[in-house]
Amino acid sequence: MKIKVFREPAKLQKWCRARKLAGAKIALVPTMGALHDGHMSLIRAAKRRGADEIVVSVFVNPVQFGPNEDYEKYPRDEKADLAKCAAEGATAVFFPTPANMYLDRHSVYVNEEDLSRGLCGGRRPGHFRGVCTVVAKLFNLAHPDFAVFGQKDYQQAQVIRRMVRDLNFDLKIVVAPIVREKSGLARSSRNAYLSDAERGKALAISKGLGELKPGSSLKALSRSLEKAGLVVDYVECVDAETLEPRKMPKKGCCVLVAAFCGKTRLIDNRVL
Amino acid sequence: MKIKVFREPAKLQKWCRARKLAGAKIALVPTMGALHDGHMSLIRAAKRRGADEIVVSVFVNPVQFGPNEDYEKYPRDEKADLAKCAAEGATAVFFPTPANMYLDRHSVYVNEEDLSRGLCGGRRPGHFRGVCTVVAKLFNLAHPDFAVFGQKDYQQAQVIRRMVRDLNFDLKIVVAPIVREKSGLARSSRNAYLSDAERGKALAISKGLGELKPGSSLKALSRSLEKAGLVVDYVECVDAETLEPRKMPKKGCCVLVAAFCGKTRLIDNRVL
Repeated sequence: MKIKVFREPAKLQKWCRARKLAGAKIALVPTMGALHDGHMSLIRAAKRRGADEIVVSVFVNPVQFGPNEDYEKYPRDEKADLAKCAAEGATAVFFPTPANMYLDRHSVYVNEEDLSRGLCGGRRPGHFRGVCTVVAKLFNLAHPDFAVFGQKDYQQAQVIRRMVRDLNFDLKIVVAPIVREKSGLARSSRNAYLSDAERGKALAISKGLGELKPGSSLKALSRSLEKAGLVVDYVECVDAETLEPRKMPKKGCCVLVAAFCGKTRLIDNRVL
Repeated sequence: MKIKVFREPAKLQKWCRARKLAGAKIALVPTMGALHDGHMSLIRAAKRRGADEIVVSVFVNPVQFGPNEDYEKYPRDEKADLAKCAAEGATAVFFPTPANMYLDRHSVYVNEEDLSRGLCGGRRPGHFRGVCTVVAKLFNLAHPDFAVFGQKDYQQAQVIRRMVRDLNFDLKIVVAPIVREKSGLARSSRNAYLSDAERGKALAISKGLGELKPGSSLKALSRSLEKAGLVVDYVECVDAETLEPRKMPKKGCCVLVAAFCGKTRLIDNRVL
């Protein structure tokens, strides 16, 4: 079967609605494109869970970027993304434009006001408002039985789970494990920004997280990142469910790191 | 067929999902209960549009009331509401509790930031945030093909339409005309608060709106309300679509009134 390509939200919705009413189990994989092995693992997770239709959305969502962030330079490669989705077994790809996702006088936003306050939400005001809004739209367009997110964006996955619970979306959230390069570096579309020297420095993040044990010092982790030449945005230990701060890594915690490697902001995390 | 009664959101959702997948056309009629002829007209509108299932939700939504408003004393009469729904031909009624609509740590809200700024939204901060949030939840629970709202809450209907557009809900909004008592008074559950003397005063609202013509003076309308013994909250003329202020009533405008009659806040409107 040739993969379907949708650009118009209304056309995607009509097709998904018909497939749903015909009894198909629909999986949604929301992405910002520049697809890599991490994204492919999300498509595979959807296949493993028996989806009849796997809809990959590719949309660099302007509303989740701050004014000084990398919206403009975020990598875009529609042709390559489409080929990868087809090769991995996705059945539909959705490439909307900002103008058809945000119509004239767009004025409705979804806000999560608890889990999104700290971590990346604290450093990127409006980020999760943009994420929740676009994901709510994609849910309504694609009628998924489940949607697959990557654990690399740990806070995002928790925020989306909360949105599904609190707005009663009739679907399940699946969170797939972080996919890493051989070096340990977490796969990210933003890795494309890194020079060879920067890639070397960036390894301190996965190495530091990998060496964590219950009771490890977060200060030591933070120092090791700075020593490698990174600028730490945050190193935090939180309850894996509530995202409330915890003093020290232990079972049931998640340790999250955000650090600048040159101009590139990288994130990674580990659940203990 | 006996009318179905649901109290658990998950059970309503499961049933609606099954009916939807079986091909039923579902109509949702969201209400706060204390049902009157206005609500019955919404059920009739759903029937006329060929709904196979008509789900009436009855929920006094705490999130849309301000701290000094009438949440506590808002009239509640589940038994009478159920009987009226059954008599009018609704097929299911949903009576949730605040605790099962807003779970522990509820933290996700839907905000409309344009149409909800003025009129009632300006006087009742957080009101439309509560309305949008609960209606989004009801949409996700009931899987309606369409939802019916009353024109009496004109701003609400416009805000909900915008929410449906901007969040891509896969359903239509139907707005049914205002139902009036013989006297002209717009039907409202809050009319139950009025003494006989207050009902007399309240008639000035429908009378004043009824006499409006293109070019009529809003100041004169406002003065006639005050003269009848009402305290005007607002008398405004807006574009019927965008809700932008217009100087003078003319075709394509809506004139909206909110006024206190004793302690009771009444609203009414007329599209020219």
